[in-house]
Amino acid sequence: MIINMFYTMCNTLLNNIYYPADLKKLNVNQLPTLCNELRNYIIRMCANNPGHLGSSLGVIELTVAIHYVFNTPYDRIVWDVGHQAYAHKILTGRKDLFHTNRCFRGISGFPTPKESEYDSFGTGHSSTSISAALGLSIASELQKLNRNVVAVIGDGSMTGGLAFEGLNNATINPNNLLIILNDNHMAIDPIRGGLSDFLSNIHTSKTYNKLRYAAYRTLKALHLINDNRKKKIIRFGNTLKSLKSEIATNNIFEGLNIRYFGPIDGHDVTKMVSVLTELKSHRGPKVLHIITKKGKGYAPAEKEVTLWHAPGEFNPNTGEIKKVSHGAQPPKFQQVFGETLLELAKNNNKIVGITPAMPSGCSMNIMMQAMPKRTFDVGIAEGHAVTFSAGLAKDGLLPFCNIYSSFMQRAYDNVIHDVALQQLNVVLCLDRAGIVGNDGATHQGAFDLAYFRCIPNLTIAAPINEHELRNMMYTAQLPNQGAVVIRYPRGKGVTIDWRNKMQAIEVGKAVQLKQGNNAAVLSIGTIGNHVIDAIKQIETTHNHITIAHYNMRYLKPLDTNTLTQVCQKHKIIFTAEDGTINGGLGSAVAEFVCQHYPGIKVIRIGIPDQFIEHGSPAELYNMLNINANGIAKTIINTLI
Amino acid sequence: MIINMFYTMCNTLLNNIYYPADLKKLNVNQLPTLCNELRNYIIRMCANNPGHLGSSLGVIELTVAIHYVFNTPYDRIVWDVGHQAYAHKILTGRKDLFHTNRCFRGISGFPTPKESEYDSFGTGHSSTSISAALGLSIASELQKLNRNVVAVIGDGSMTGGLAFEGLNNATINPNNLLIILNDNHMAIDPIRGGLSDFLSNIHTSKTYNKLRYAAYRTLKALHLINDNRKKKIIRFGNTLKSLKSEIATNNIFEGLNIRYFGPIDGHDVTKMVSVLTELKSHRGPKVLHIITKKGKGYAPAEKEVTLWHAPGEFNPNTGEIKKVSHGAQPPKFQQVFGETLLELAKNNNKIVGITPAMPSGCSMNIMMQAMPKRTFDVGIAEGHAVTFSAGLAKDGLLPFCNIYSSFMQRAYDNVIHDVALQQLNVVLCLDRAGIVGNDGATHQGAFDLAYFRCIPNLTIAAPINEHELRNMMYTAQLPNQGAVVIRYPRGKGVTIDWRNKMQAIEVGKAVQLKQGNNAAVLSIGTIGNHVIDAIKQIETTHNHITIAHYNMRYLKPLDTNTLTQVCQKHKIIFTAEDGTINGGLGSAVAEFVCQHYPGIKVIRIGIPDQFIEHGSPAELYNMLNINANGIAKTIINTLI
Repeated sequence: MIINMFYTMCNTLLNNIYYPADLKKLNVNQLPTLCNELRNYIIRMCANNPGHLGSSLGVIELTVAIHYVFNTPYDRIVWDVGHQAYAHKILTGRKDLFHTNRCFRGISGFPTPKESEYDSFGTGHSSTSISAALGLSIASELQKLNRNVVAVIGDGSMTGGLAFEGLNNATINPNNLLIILNDNHMAIDPIRGGLSDFLSNIHTSKTYNKLRYAAYRTLKALHLINDNRKKKIIRFGNTLKSLKSEIATNNIFEGLNIRYFGPIDGHDVTKMVSVLTELKSHRGPKVLHIITKKGKGYAPAEKEVTLWHAPGEFNPNTGEIKKVSHGAQPPKFQQVFGETLLELAKNNNKIVGITPAMPSGCSMNIMMQAMPKRTFDVGIAEGHAVTFSAGLAKDGLLPFCNIYSSFMQRAYDNVIHDVALQQLNVVLCLDRAGIVGNDGATHQGAFDLAYFRCIPNLTIAAPINEHELRNMMYTAQLPNQGAVVIRYPRGKGVTIDWRNKMQAIEVGKAVQLKQGNNAAVLSIGTIGNHVIDAIKQIETTHNHITIAHYNMRYLKPLDTNTLTQVCQKHKIIFTAEDGTINGGLGSAVAEFVCQHYPGIKVIRIGIPDQFIEHGSPAELYNMLNINANGIAKTIINTLI
Repeated sequence: MIINMFYTMCNTLLNNIYYPADLKKLNVNQLPTLCNELRNYIIRMCANNPGHLGSSLGVIELTVAIHYVFNTPYDRIVWDVGHQAYAHKILTGRKDLFHTNRCFRGISGFPTPKESEYDSFGTGHSSTSISAALGLSIASELQKLNRNVVAVIGDGSMTGGLAFEGLNNATINPNNLLIILNDNHMAIDPIRGGLSDFLSNIHTSKTYNKLRYAAYRTLKALHLINDNRKKKIIRFGNTLKSLKSEIATNNIFEGLNIRYFGPIDGHDVTKMVSVLTELKSHRGPKVLHIITKKGKGYAPAEKEVTLWHAPGEFNPNTGEIKKVSHGAQPPKFQQVFGETLLELAKNNNKIVGITPAMPSGCSMNIMMQAMPKRTFDVGIAEGHAVTFSAGLAKDGLLPFCNIYSSFMQRAYDNVIHDVALQQLNVVLCLDRAGIVGNDGATHQGAFDLAYFRCIPNLTIAAPINEHELRNMMYTAQLPNQGAVVIRYPRGKGVTIDWRNKMQAIEVGKAVQLKQGNNAAVLSIGTIGNHVIDAIKQIETTHNHITIAHYNMRYLKPLDTNTLTQVCQKHKIIFTAEDGTINGGLGSAVAEFVCQHYPGIKVIRIGIPDQFIEHGSPAELYNMLNINANGIAKTIINTLI
């Protein structure tokens, strides 16, 4: 209470700002103060209610400048990888809801048009903004609406092929697109690659750029700017460029016929306002390159950028990140993956690791540190990650390619054509499968079982616990296993003593975990642990009922021998999976039963046919009735 | 026979060449003659056995030069969009099989490692070569195999984001990759976009390039080339470049830190040999830009490039393309789509058309010609096509985005995140759904029903004939229909008089086509016509049997009312779909039946769980037992 009052007293500008209209009442020289208030506000809020801190701190000045200069929401702003949009949300009517950010039934951590008309386009994963904004811009042109359209995209997102496809198309039709390239040299981890080098080279040739921008400004001030003259300025810029920097001569954007401005300091809000004001009247597609610092203005976040990407709860004054610890805990599946991969790689020199920009997220950084030459962070580029893995496999290596389940949707064709069709030995590890929680609809790993089951030549596995994950990884790296998918969830597992001695398991073989007479539950993956608890609940409260439980382990090949035994014994089968109810294990079982054992009822438990919004996994499982209680209820209601 | 002898006599060089080892015995000055022979051979062969003529004619000199200079198959060549690889196939052991190109049980029209060790990687759709070749190259480095790896990629394929992701990664690790950019300014249709402009600009600034290459050669000849000096040459090149051409200063490849050489004439085989020989010893990733002409050396193909991309049968002497005509014929579904789209667009000014490089293939060129400002060919960039469509839809337009079914796999995530999740009014038209025939495994549209059924908020439709396609298109453009998928096959339909007056149909409503007592068949799409014939066959030969037939029309929403009626009347249900047997209509029906009407048998008819190779559609349907005979057989075997 006292703290709240304190902030209310301090935030003398922010207190009165609810919408961009309020912001526009400020004098431009008040904006740095507002930015400070906004920054402190976000730090304090995120300290208690975890979120994506680093990115949001990096774009505060940019956000203020955009809403100060442009006429939002009529003008359209598309925030690539929407987690950078906290300041945007606060300035566009959601300040008083911001404490519910990413919470169950609270506001989303990403822009979503369902929440606000200021959110011009929904963005969760990266690299979509240029394509979407180009669409908005051309919609404005065709309907003569005269909107300004701005895409804000980070250099990390620019490595995604989709961003390039958008850039390549930016000039094909008349449009007024402004692409703001927010360059902080980071995705979640530091980025690498040709584009990054290019941006770095431009960045470091400051003299040239200063000269170039100054020249533009001067001529502009002299009212000399018309289209023809602009071209001359560009030439002048290029001439300066050739003089000042050899490397920066090759400007990729201008190579693609998109006018390039910058780089400028993205934390100088007054300069940003003046540049954006100038560019607003500048027709045609253009790129403004700004340099920012992820975590800007909060010393701990500036220092350890990856750690502070999404730090969890922390003490805002000390920068101490809260550690939740109640004695010995099971590890995260991510840690098990990371350490197991290194363990396997030490014994199998064919193993290489590939990650599209998620080394710390998926824990491939463990192998990366130990074996830098055998691990490849390819940037946000899932399609390339898979096709590149296929190439590595084709000539004798054994790639473990780790991609989050929902991001794997970007590499769907690559898995089909480059891995499965060619029957290559690639291990596709799908991290964050199933319900992931607060990130919400764009990040839930709901579809993988269904979208991969229809693809020939794939082995699809999902472990119930850490030991099984390790055994599945071990089995997948044995000779000639073909293309293997292993999907496992985000976060903690169930086994404290997780370092089992790994052993091969029979591919496509289910195991019976428990016998029973009244029905059988077939589960795949960690939801099997909820099933175990559900059956305990049921058998405790209904002592005439016993339920059999099978851990299927593999969706493909499906264990039809076990399925046959189950069908011969039971009249009701439940299937349980942490994936969409359409197309996954439940469908596979229904297909089999309908053809071979008509008469058996199959009840499918899984994620319903809807996009699942944000909230903690526990809350979402509860809502979806796929936790132990929900599963028990479904079983009992069917049986009684 | 006489003709064959004639060619045998004329092809004095080609006659003795079966493998690259034979080619290497020639003197370099014999290569132009060999190229002529090879060109004539391909023209004559393709005249009688249709294939991708234009692209293959464009790379003859390149192919000869590559196999002359490199040590294939130890060195690896990856041919992007494999249909350019005819000369490669002929020179690598498959000359005597080339008359079976694309035929049932013949050789594939695309490179495939299953066919030859000279085919280093399977390539069907485009833009995969750089990623795959980078994988091969790094596999060589890590295993110290010292291979040369070459990716040959067209400028059309370079617009695909995957190619950019590969380029952006080409410098991250030590490798020896040579990317040959085969620039003919074409995909199937002429290409547009920033990259195309860039290549065009380089191309036209010949003086600069000549100077630049000459400088490199001279220094090389003086044995001055070491890594340090090479850098100086590049700088020298850049300096020349700045002098000679303003626009070409911005070399995208050098911007990405990849050394750029060219452009050179891709039809000058001796020059190609000398350049490739030089580049072979040049460490590090590099791009060689060559200029070629699609259809080169065959006048009709040079003149009408799009028409001769894959012309069908023709008279090689006159250049007359054979027209198959036996009186009035039903139109191709493509024509119905194209003309109907224009018809709708005339009455609904919100409609816009989007195609990723397939305007002539899908017949969007009809609308493009009539309404150039309302149609967008975005290049080979399926992901962008969909996200761009989403942007257009978000601000009030109604995009019809037409993508071949198998290519839609590239836009899977875009459909999920940018269209379905945001519930935007986008009509996704999936051309070439189901079995497409000779193009084979990479082009069969087998998976769409399964991979889309698990996605929420999608309407999924498949017409049985032209009238229904038109009605579905009409219905999809009515207000607030959300995201609608309409999938239809390649080629001819069944209705001569196809221009019905369009009318709305109830979304998600099946129609009963025929009554019957012994079983019901539920079909979706044009396979329904085979079902009609199959039932006729059965009822003719077994006059005690009658079969009901329902045209489901929509996979999603599924017509559960009709399904309930069917379940109440029948004990056996057959499902029929021109899509994978796992996950589509058959699964949806099995799911429903198992839950609500256990006891009914469901037999699924569809494409089995395997990749389907090439051959005419009729042959493949026959092989898969999903033509009228096969369906009749399945039904009878189950019933009797």
